[in-house]
Amino acid sequence: MLHLESDYNTGAHPEVIKKLAETNAEVLSGYGTDKYSEAARAKIRAACECPDAEIVFISGGTQTNAVAIALSLADYEGVIAARTGHVSLHEAGAIEYTGHKVIELTGTDGKLNADTVREYCEVFYADENRSMMVFPGMVYVSYPTEYGTLYSKAELEAIAAVCRDYNMKLFLDGARLGYGLMSRKSDLTLPDIARICDLFYIGGTKLGALCGEALVFTRNNMPPHADGSIKRRGAMMSKSRVLGVQFDALFTNDLYFRIGKHSVELAEKMCSVFARHGYKFLLQSPTNQQFPIIENSLLAKLREKVTVGFWEKYDDTHSVIRCATCWSTTEADIAELDRILGEITS
Amino acid sequence: MLHLESDYNTGAHPEVIKKLAETNAEVLSGYGTDKYSEAARAKIRAACECPDAEIVFISGGTQTNAVAIALSLADYEGVIAARTGHVSLHEAGAIEYTGHKVIELTGTDGKLNADTVREYCEVFYADENRSMMVFPGMVYVSYPTEYGTLYSKAELEAIAAVCRDYNMKLFLDGARLGYGLMSRKSDLTLPDIARICDLFYIGGTKLGALCGEALVFTRNNMPPHADGSIKRRGAMMSKSRVLGVQFDALFTNDLYFRIGKHSVELAEKMCSVFARHGYKFLLQSPTNQQFPIIENSLLAKLREKVTVGFWEKYDDTHSVIRCATCWSTTEADIAELDRILGEITS
Amino acid sequence: MLHLESDYNTGAHPEVIKKLAETNAEVLSGYGTDKYSEAARAKIRAACECPDAEIVFISGGTQTNAVAIALSLADYEGVIAARTGHVSLHEAGAIEYTGHKVIELTGTDGKLNADTVREYCEVFYADENRSMMVFPGMVYVSYPTEYGTLYSKAELEAIAAVCRDYNMKLFLDGARLGYGLMSRKSDLTLPDIARICDLFYIGGTKLGALCGEALVFTRNNMPPHADGSIKRRGAMMSKSRVLGVQFDALFTNDLYFRIGKHSVELAEKMCSVFARHGYKFLLQSPTNQQFPIIENSLLAKLREKVTVGFWEKYDDTHSVIRCATCWSTTEADIAELDRILGEITS
Amino acid sequence: MLHLESDYNTGAHPEVIKKLAETNAEVLSGYGTDKYSEAARAKIRAACECPDAEIVFISGGTQTNAVAIALSLADYEGVIAARTGHVSLHEAGAIEYTGHKVIELTGTDGKLNADTVREYCEVFYADENRSMMVFPGMVYVSYPTEYGTLYSKAELEAIAAVCRDYNMKLFLDGARLGYGLMSRKSDLTLPDIARICDLFYIGGTKLGALCGEALVFTRNNMPPHADGSIKRRGAMMSKSRVLGVQFDALFTNDLYFRIGKHSVELAEKMCSVFARHGYKFLLQSPTNQQFPIIENSLLAKLREKVTVGFWEKYDDTHSVIRCATCWSTTEADIAELDRILGEITS
Repeated sequence: MLHLESDYNTGAHPEVIKKLAETNAEVLSGYGTDKYSEAARAKIRAACECPDAEIVFISGGTQTNAVAIALSLADYEGVIAARTGHVSLHEAGAIEYTGHKVIELTGTDGKLNADTVREYCEVFYADENRSMMVFPGMVYVSYPTEYGTLYSKAELEAIAAVCRDYNMKLFLDGARLGYGLMSRKSDLTLPDIARICDLFYIGGTKLGALCGEALVFTRNNMPPHADGSIKRRGAMMSKSRVLGVQFDALFTNDLYFRIGKHSVELAEKMCSVFARHGYKFLLQSPTNQQFPIIENSLLAKLREKVTVGFWEKYDDTHSVIRCATCWSTTEADIAELDRILGEITS
Repeated sequence: MLHLESDYNTGAHPEVIKKLAETNAEVLSGYGTDKYSEAARAKIRAACECPDAEIVFISGGTQTNAVAIALSLADYEGVIAARTGHVSLHEAGAIEYTGHKVIELTGTDGKLNADTVREYCEVFYADENRSMMVFPGMVYVSYPTEYGTLYSKAELEAIAAVCRDYNMKLFLDGARLGYGLMSRKSDLTLPDIARICDLFYIGGTKLGALCGEALVFTRNNMPPHADGSIKRRGAMMSKSRVLGVQFDALFTNDLYFRIGKHSVELAEKMCSVFARHGYKFLLQSPTNQQFPIIENSLLAKLREKVTVGFWEKYDDTHSVIRCATCWSTTEADIAELDRILGEITS
Repeated sequence: MLHLESDYNTGAHPEVIKKLAETNAEVLSGYGTDKYSEAARAKIRAACECPDAEIVFISGGTQTNAVAIALSLADYEGVIAARTGHVSLHEAGAIEYTGHKVIELTGTDGKLNADTVREYCEVFYADENRSMMVFPGMVYVSYPTEYGTLYSKAELEAIAAVCRDYNMKLFLDGARLGYGLMSRKSDLTLPDIARICDLFYIGGTKLGALCGEALVFTRNNMPPHADGSIKRRGAMMSKSRVLGVQFDALFTNDLYFRIGKHSVELAEKMCSVFARHGYKFLLQSPTNQQFPIIENSLLAKLREKVTVGFWEKYDDTHSVIRCATCWSTTEADIAELDRILGEITS
Repeated sequence: MLHLESDYNTGAHPEVIKKLAETNAEVLSGYGTDKYSEAARAKIRAACECPDAEIVFISGGTQTNAVAIALSLADYEGVIAARTGHVSLHEAGAIEYTGHKVIELTGTDGKLNADTVREYCEVFYADENRSMMVFPGMVYVSYPTEYGTLYSKAELEAIAAVCRDYNMKLFLDGARLGYGLMSRKSDLTLPDIARICDLFYIGGTKLGALCGEALVFTRNNMPPHADGSIKRRGAMMSKSRVLGVQFDALFTNDLYFRIGKHSVELAEKMCSVFARHGYKFLLQSPTNQQFPIIENSLLAKLREKVTVGFWEKYDDTHSVIRCATCWSTTEADIAELDRILGEITS
């Protein structure tokens, strides 16, 4: 069986698991104070070119989004997101569980448009009854988006400008950040992101770690006593080394970026393979997730040999599927896909 | 100054305030156990032809929505509402404060369409990842809607059918229920609503009371220990007589319906007056709120003599305004409006 | 039947209900902007000698406590209260519903002791693990307490000093404030309370209003956009006049204080009557609530003629009951109690 | 430096880390569906002799407590716990964050007494005002307690009987369960606990795992759609294998129990060493945590050579410290402690 359904179906990158094993017997303090967490923070600060960045490690993405949003919003504020955003759709209401509204706007291919956000704010602030409405206090974007697409630097800066104009924070969900940064189509660097956003996270779980995300506050804007706030949301690991060691490994010798690059290159090849066999795509994704359209009876055949994710219904006879690469995907996998597609499509 | 901006800018209907004064010195128990609350519940049950209805009185509408929704949903569920619904837009995030998501769907003139809801549910239950999504557990409709429009009996029953098919509760926000029921265009009665909905509320604040809403559970579905759940949301009045006496008055000699009828008749006349002076409307509302479109410089002139609500921008030179009637609106008010419109429009 | 079970079993003081009726037809804006709310705020500011006080009116006490506490605490903070405090025991978990812990300390006769609070804070700040604990961010006191007892000025100032030393806010629940201020044993005035506390509320429901409490922020410390925060907790009345008119009446011609004085004087007489018939008390209350101890079979007889509140079991054969006076209690009521006690006790 | 400050300062037991490494490249599904999670569940069910147990794996203890409590309580209910319980004191208000009150009762050496709980319930259900109070819906116990102490089978069954009588669930926090079960003083087995409790968790983080706890529902009482409820609290790991593999290892060849036994035996030796050097203890702990009392200047000296946890002030000149053993503690460590104590105490 060939596995392409997700980027979280194998364990950690070998260099990560190796470091976990090597450091296993060391005695280390907990709750974020261990030396590997410290080292990882220093390396991330350097990679971000943001020497004052405050960084906390959290075990998963939904938790990180909830903590980032809940701790940054005032009571009367909500967070703007694309209707297709992870926080809008696929976190089982985790943001609402914190008591805050996700203000859903229509985007394009997973992306929010700065003009849409600006117009929303203009209408909001022109409304005489706005004191009875949820104030927009933050804009949430994901990079890459849930559809694998990327904001250009200009697009992200345009959104940041709206945020400045309307006193909103800009938060970037980087669950798959490395795949975005290493895309051929990306004109953004990690320092760019640290400079443009008020806070963002560097995703580990989907990029070579067993678990863990690094939440980065770039403006000396980590809330006071964040430890307690994170603890009470269940997002604090006592053996914080688990996250510290993994991020230390990911930010040693550019591993994080190597993983991203490897996966995106194979995704491009995967994309070519699908195209060569005549498949169209829901959209052009320049990152590690691809969304081919497939006739339903073919999909059934394909699934006998390849695991793929069902994404959405395309029409009565076709489906959109998701195929993802990650650190463990190989050239052989792509060749195998080619063979299988040849077999079932003919 | 002529006042048309809302239906909550005068006090209580004289029969209501009179009863509050008359019963003021009586010694009564509190927390919903007073005899007027009991009497009011009996009268409402009779009016609903729902002898088993369980009824609680709550001081305001937002509170009632929050209590009704929070107590009816399971932890993993959210409530479907029109994007323009009161719970979606104008309660400052009160539903999200209870931890639940408002699943916003596009409606028409403030109304949800049964097909839209059904399609949403079909897609939801076809989604392989739905366990990571918010389950739709309730449908929220308002009658009349925030735009003054009405569901027909067939429309409401169609929504109820979707609710049955997908195991959702149907909740009707009747903040202005009496205006809906007394509309010439309504084919629904109070017993119809009690029969079709799982729970709904009869709005007092906007229909002749100083404050207060009657939340009606029609299926023996009031949650256990609702008292405590209401108390902890701050929605329990110790001097519950305040609400009991008012609803007792409103449901004596059909006062609630007389207020509705009076207001809607005057709204029709108000509508004609606007039309006669050449104004168009955002939509046709058959209830006590009307939404004329007015050129901005005229609006400024109008506001020197009439208070009206700003509703939304229509285009660069026009606005939609809201004009509402209520128990205290008089024929003389409408005549005065006619005179003023003549003056400013000429 | 003689009614002594509570101070919320009759309606509003006649001067209050009269004003509600007189102003009923006036057209007024809502959501706290009506002229009576403005006037009431001005009168309260004057009575508090706190010209910058920010004041919001809220329909009930539990709601007011929840709003005051939730809006004043940081995410990682809780509120210290006596184990017997209203927020600890009798609000069905309303404070926890806002997500915050009530840190319960042992008090005496309903009162917190400054030394107890200080010691708690000393131990807390000496704890190496305090980052995983709830920070004390506020002290909650009630005046009078739930047991009718009063803090002296020195005692309240001592608690305020601890609050300053440990960066906590001091919040005073004045559900029955007027009874405390008018007690012969009180050495505190309303300006004292405004000066000593960061926020407090002046209770209306239990002191002559139909409903309503005035929450007073004394340090320019009302949170920004409090309107929205209050709205989303369901604590905002659209017909805010209901509260504004009542508080305007209560603070006209010292009505609030007259009610307090009248009730406390009758409570003293009630106390004497019980004592004369040989009853002992749970404690000495100098306010409108008295807590006599009564043998259980006598209690059964008493309850045939007088409504009283059960407070707690005293021992296997005795109970503590609560008897309260309010604006509607008369000299004749006390004489009647005297007669009844003579009858059943002999 | 000798490290005795906690049982979470080294990584995973070698058999656990080995299995993580060995299975790392395997392709596995996520969100709890991987085959190792399935296998671990089967092994735990067998170890519990509870073939119908429903089991979810969660990354940390605070999260597990919050999920277990929030999903088991009705809206109007709270959880009874000892004032010293982990949920009461050391989770930064995580339970209150779910909206529920921790009803704190006084215990002894960290343990709740069945009589105390029964008396609380008797008084509660005798209170005429209980509808305005938080209903006790669950009893929380920890085994071992935060003080290392153990309930006897009779004690735990007595609490369970109170729970049955008053319709409360019994939840056991087993963050250190293995240390309790393997104590010489324990008369409880894992099947006993599964039989007596409605739900409990088997702690991994503090007993040989990198992270992870196994929450066990023993009465077919896992709430419906628990996946979504866990997800929205941020407690769902996408690479669930991380937890599944670790628990599979822990429940293979009795590793979990071997770790417990090893640690408790060394703790007994550690205890003897302290005693031999003349130290007294705060209390007798039969598990892996010991609480010696030490003069403050000696503590300073000790801390130059041994890391220990500060537990609490004993008197003006003495402190209580916490020393813990775990899988990585060795006989050599104990010998070294002996040497150090000899050195500093002489």
